[in-house]
Amino acid sequence: MCSTKATPKFKQLKQSYGFDDVAIVPGDVTINPDQVDTEFQIGKFTFAIPFMASAMDSVVDVNMVIHLHKLGGLGVLNLDGVQARYANPDEILEKIAKASDADVTALLQQVYREPIKDNLVGDRVKAIKKAGAICAISLTPANTKRLAPIVQEAGGDILVVQSTVTSARHISKSYRGLIFSELCKQMKMPIVVGNCVSYTACLELMHTGIAGVLVGVGPGAACTSREVLGVGVPQITATIDCAAARDTYYKETKKYIPIITDGGLRKGGDICKAFAAGTDAVMIGSPIAQTKEAPGRGYHWGMSHPHPALPRGTRVKVGTNTTLEKVLFGPTSVVHGTENFVGALRTAMGFCGAANIKEMHNADMVIAPALSTEGKFYQMTQKV
Amino acid sequence: MCSTKATPKFKQLKQSYGFDDVAIVPGDVTINPDQVDTEFQIGKFTFAIPFMASAMDSVVDVNMVIHLHKLGGLGVLNLDGVQARYANPDEILEKIAKASDADVTALLQQVYREPIKDNLVGDRVKAIKKAGAICAISLTPANTKRLAPIVQEAGGDILVVQSTVTSARHISKSYRGLIFSELCKQMKMPIVVGNCVSYTACLELMHTGIAGVLVGVGPGAACTSREVLGVGVPQITATIDCAAARDTYYKETKKYIPIITDGGLRKGGDICKAFAAGTDAVMIGSPIAQTKEAPGRGYHWGMSHPHPALPRGTRVKVGTNTTLEKVLFGPTSVVHGTENFVGALRTAMGFCGAANIKEMHNADMVIAPALSTEGKFYQMTQKV
Amino acid sequence: MCSTKATPKFKQLKQSYGFDDVAIVPGDVTINPDQVDTEFQIGKFTFAIPFMASAMDSVVDVNMVIHLHKLGGLGVLNLDGVQARYANPDEILEKIAKASDADVTALLQQVYREPIKDNLVGDRVKAIKKAGAICAISLTPANTKRLAPIVQEAGGDILVVQSTVTSARHISKSYRGLIFSELCKQMKMPIVVGNCVSYTACLELMHTGIAGVLVGVGPGAACTSREVLGVGVPQITATIDCAAARDTYYKETKKYIPIITDGGLRKGGDICKAFAAGTDAVMIGSPIAQTKEAPGRGYHWGMSHPHPALPRGTRVKVGTNTTLEKVLFGPTSVVHGTENFVGALRTAMGFCGAANIKEMHNADMVIAPALSTEGKFYQMTQKV
Amino acid sequence: MCSTKATPKFKQLKQSYGFDDVAIVPGDVTINPDQVDTEFQIGKFTFAIPFMASAMDSVVDVNMVIHLHKLGGLGVLNLDGVQARYANPDEILEKIAKASDADVTALLQQVYREPIKDNLVGDRVKAIKKAGAICAISLTPANTKRLAPIVQEAGGDILVVQSTVTSARHISKSYRGLIFSELCKQMKMPIVVGNCVSYTACLELMHTGIAGVLVGVGPGAACTSREVLGVGVPQITATIDCAAARDTYYKETKKYIPIITDGGLRKGGDICKAFAAGTDAVMIGSPIAQTKEAPGRGYHWGMSHPHPALPRGTRVKVGTNTTLEKVLFGPTSVVHGTENFVGALRTAMGFCGAANIKEMHNADMVIAPALSTEGKFYQMTQKV
Repeated sequence: MCSTKATPKFKQLKQSYGFDDVAIVPGDVTINPDQVDTEFQIGKFTFAIPFMASAMDSVVDVNMVIHLHKLGGLGVLNLDGVQARYANPDEILEKIAKASDADVTALLQQVYREPIKDNLVGDRVKAIKKAGAICAISLTPANTKRLAPIVQEAGGDILVVQSTVTSARHISKSYRGLIFSELCKQMKMPIVVGNCVSYTACLELMHTGIAGVLVGVGPGAACTSREVLGVGVPQITATIDCAAARDTYYKETKKYIPIITDGGLRKGGDICKAFAAGTDAVMIGSPIAQTKEAPGRGYHWGMSHPHPALPRGTRVKVGTNTTLEKVLFGPTSVVHGTENFVGALRTAMGFCGAANIKEMHNADMVIAPALSTEGKFYQMTQKV
Repeated sequence: MCSTKATPKFKQLKQSYGFDDVAIVPGDVTINPDQVDTEFQIGKFTFAIPFMASAMDSVVDVNMVIHLHKLGGLGVLNLDGVQARYANPDEILEKIAKASDADVTALLQQVYREPIKDNLVGDRVKAIKKAGAICAISLTPANTKRLAPIVQEAGGDILVVQSTVTSARHISKSYRGLIFSELCKQMKMPIVVGNCVSYTACLELMHTGIAGVLVGVGPGAACTSREVLGVGVPQITATIDCAAARDTYYKETKKYIPIITDGGLRKGGDICKAFAAGTDAVMIGSPIAQTKEAPGRGYHWGMSHPHPALPRGTRVKVGTNTTLEKVLFGPTSVVHGTENFVGALRTAMGFCGAANIKEMHNADMVIAPALSTEGKFYQMTQKV
Repeated sequence: MCSTKATPKFKQLKQSYGFDDVAIVPGDVTINPDQVDTEFQIGKFTFAIPFMASAMDSVVDVNMVIHLHKLGGLGVLNLDGVQARYANPDEILEKIAKASDADVTALLQQVYREPIKDNLVGDRVKAIKKAGAICAISLTPANTKRLAPIVQEAGGDILVVQSTVTSARHISKSYRGLIFSELCKQMKMPIVVGNCVSYTACLELMHTGIAGVLVGVGPGAACTSREVLGVGVPQITATIDCAAARDTYYKETKKYIPIITDGGLRKGGDICKAFAAGTDAVMIGSPIAQTKEAPGRGYHWGMSHPHPALPRGTRVKVGTNTTLEKVLFGPTSVVHGTENFVGALRTAMGFCGAANIKEMHNADMVIAPALSTEGKFYQMTQKV
Repeated sequence: MCSTKATPKFKQLKQSYGFDDVAIVPGDVTINPDQVDTEFQIGKFTFAIPFMASAMDSVVDVNMVIHLHKLGGLGVLNLDGVQARYANPDEILEKIAKASDADVTALLQQVYREPIKDNLVGDRVKAIKKAGAICAISLTPANTKRLAPIVQEAGGDILVVQSTVTSARHISKSYRGLIFSELCKQMKMPIVVGNCVSYTACLELMHTGIAGVLVGVGPGAACTSREVLGVGVPQITATIDCAAARDTYYKETKKYIPIITDGGLRKGGDICKAFAAGTDAVMIGSPIAQTKEAPGRGYHWGMSHPHPALPRGTRVKVGTNTTLEKVLFGPTSVVHGTENFVGALRTAMGFCGAANIKEMHNADMVIAPALSTEGKFYQMTQKV
């Protein structure tokens, strides 16, 4: 027998929630959907709709940036992928679309071994600026020191530094890592950083002087980080925590740094819930990958997929049966919420009496069981 | 590194429950089912059974109102749909029933573009009154000012003003919205308003002078509001919250305003749980859409389905293998609770020792895992 | 706007648990399985194994009672069913086994319309006593006054009065109901009553002088009470609550009245958990219905199934690929826990260091997610 | 009516969590994956990677021990199985692999009836030592007194005494059981004991002088203990509780006894979570059973499976489409986390800013809903 007098210390776990776990409660006041304001700002740039397209090769190319600009949103061009590695990316994208499921991971690993070309980085920025669109470019932390000046010089407007997980403090013995506070001073462009999911990590990032934070680790449809690494926080909880960091930072500094929920948003309901949880904008991938205009040609994959030794994510066949305009504004005959996202957001804001995005942050939410069981009932009882 | 001295404020979420999440605990006293009283009142009208039929085109037409009146319940006629738009609604209903799944949403969007005719509104009311039935008419908030006087003049007994979400305060810059307190003074008919799901929204509505509140946003079988908009509260929680508002209002004013759980009720068990959660009556749609007498001809759809730009809900094939009388009173050989709702309610009240609906509100309930897993066992272990 | 000063009173719901929601934690001490004592007592009768067979027509006939007696357990003969209605019940059971799924509910409704014959009640009791077995007979509350004296006179040992839900106080205006305290005085046999699921209902029943309580409403495999009526409490919570009532009653009176978890037990794991939750014995139906010796001939149905107006439950095809001895004692090559229940109980008691059933009541349990997801993994990743 | 004055005592249940119920939260600091240290120690032995292979006949034979040694991990040879019962175990393993699903449980029951031969025990140890590998041998408690000296004499390095459930105190009237404190004094080899799942059981075991504790009851892919016996604790909770015991023991004695999470680990994500929960190493079975090198020849089964009277577990077909090196170090084109476990662990440690395993114990975790629902979305909405 042993003495057990020491008080044991057990690790404590906090409950977290994803889109399917919550629902928005209608407000005590309602408002006409056509009278709500959905504006969103990054630095000095204002967007009519708080929608960004993910910096993924299957989602955004130069044409998509231009198209989305005209519709009031912001497409972020990934310059860590095929657009910066190949003079003719369409040829490569065609090849990926035609690969079989069995071959595609190996093909992607090979495609992304091709080095990034500095001149292509400048060319892509100029093509966007020439069309008159706001130009947001995504780089990885490892490439930022080298490529950010090229982006700025070519006329880039917003820099997005994006990694699977980002922190203000990165430890490395072999090289001097990217220091965001230094980068913010060196660059004139507002810098958006991500992804992060926790209160303290988000708050630390904001203190480096950045202009926006992408929220979300592990939730995307093309992402299997939680299976492979066990890492990830469901998006409602991640958004609530980072929104709290933004509000704390605002209280301390009077600077309002927007957060952008990024990943896992598939339906209008998900998007409305992200805003009720506190986000300022959403970054969507797979819904745009499904449009005719998307560079993925009906396929969608993530940037962790081609990792040479530890691939995460899958290439998902998503089809091309819709258009960017329908996805954002409808009209639609699709009843499951995969089209008319802006209409859905306006309607939900109306139900919550929210005149603008900041008021939508105050909407009540409940933890609610998923709807799936109700649907099953019909399969069981249908008599015909 | 940043200072993190400010106390972070995280959004708080309350747990909520639907029918499948709870179960009724039998009482310490039991009572004979044939000795319980199931009466229900709206204003001066008393109903032998606390069952209302949903104001949906697939559920209620003039004949259904008359049929249900004879059985002791109340059918609410929807005068925002085909009954008020077409002189011969049966022709249109036939067309909807024959449409393919692929075409039906577009067809519904077209069918509901036809304007509402004032003369048809009066005609439907008169047809019901001529048959000697209590006449309850449902209108949307947008049409109420124009059509409510026509309903009253034609002899309507009860007015139901129904929208996806209803609040006592609606904000609109472009027009002067419907003010329930004014409407209640103008009309002689008792006014039932819905739908709402929260304590404060329900309490505010009661203070406008209305005669009943419909409870439920997002739960119906033909409704996809939660997928499209993220909005909705599971019915047990919605009913508990609105029942608390009714009891608060009664304490303050000594007026007892009934609440009616509306949507998502598919089986006898759901109905019994709604009463244990505190409702005074239930409004059912899909179980009645399944009867031979239903105007839907074996199909069921919701009023948000035909929305021109943001359709929500699906047309569900429900068949016509039962009758209204069987659904309400049996006898039945169906063992899954889709028939003999009144018998089920009486039996459950007996198990809880509840002599009337108000006593049934005091029945204990537990949060209980769904039954599905137990059923699966047989599929796995069946050896024959 | 309304005043909302009154404190709202929301209905509170307690969490409840079923077999699949919990798991037993091994103890700090272990014991050899062959050294545990599984004895169980009702009144003066002692049983080597704490297993009773359900009073259901598909589970127990006279032969099953005798067979189970030899193995150390107790079969309860249902004298509200075919055994008391037909001189030759096997003929009827054969007919039920041969009926199609579509016809069986109507057939059962007809079969159970045949009246109960007093002489058959006596005959069945005598047949059991002639074979030297302990004779436990189950009656419904409605028939108890008339038939209990016949059972006692014919030599019955234990009387089980069983209904879907049983309380010590039953309200009826039309007739004077069964009063358990009076019945206990009139009869010499110990009386077991059920079913009940809550602390206060169980405690009240014990105060009437009864000798045992059956625990469980709604959980059985052949039962759909929760779907039809919404009534039912998962068995782990029901057992924990009634065990607390038993312990309270013991503290107050020094009389130990056993409780028997009845229904929903399908695997060895369920049975072990019931004992860890506090039961003194288990009553099993479907596992015995699956034996070659069962009167159900490979089919299983509940006593609520033939209700003339509100049938609940289904006839389940369970097969006859095992024997009573294998189910109770093995040996077995079945790996999913559907055979060798006594071996499983002894092993689990060994893991918990429980030398007898009362020590097993002290075993720790955790709320644990079901195992199903782990099994799914192989279907997904199997490469061959 | 009864008096209910005594305060009822209800059994309390603690919530528990498995791998699928939690997720790791990225840290506020990140670190380069190639700069983390994954070392692990048992007694004086240090291993480059904290991976042990399960002492199961389908996972480890002499060759696997040698192979795994070269890669930096530790294979534990089961000397309660075919390796100690048959001079030519490959012949038997071949037979098991060729048996049909219907016959395999009976075959296994027969195969494991063959007695253990003392000379084979010594031979296996010598074969491992001859190859220069660290030799860890697993015995059951019943065989330990007889076989442990043979293992030690033949040159064994580490002794693993393993049972389904292990406690420091075992009660038996028929024989004097194994006393770990005595065994630890008699043997020079460090002794690893398991399996256990609770704080007090683990702490008591540590006080006997052992060198490591295996954590896990009931979670393995080839294990059905929870179905058959109801016994088992999900691995995250078991690991958290035993880690707390290890920390308490360290505080009391300044001796650091490692714990090893054993069972249920299928993907990289599971492994990373086990370390975040507090484990010092993991013992994996089915992922290694899937390699070309595994003795199971594409099949996997547990040691409780062949129990003569109460078999638990199933033989699972796992295939042989990978290699030990790929499972541990990649590179891989498999995207679901079943290969490159060390790479996954290093990456997750990088995300959490953990420079070594002990720092990884401090990583935050959240309770998170499983990912499955997100995957289902595509099946539903795919339009092509």
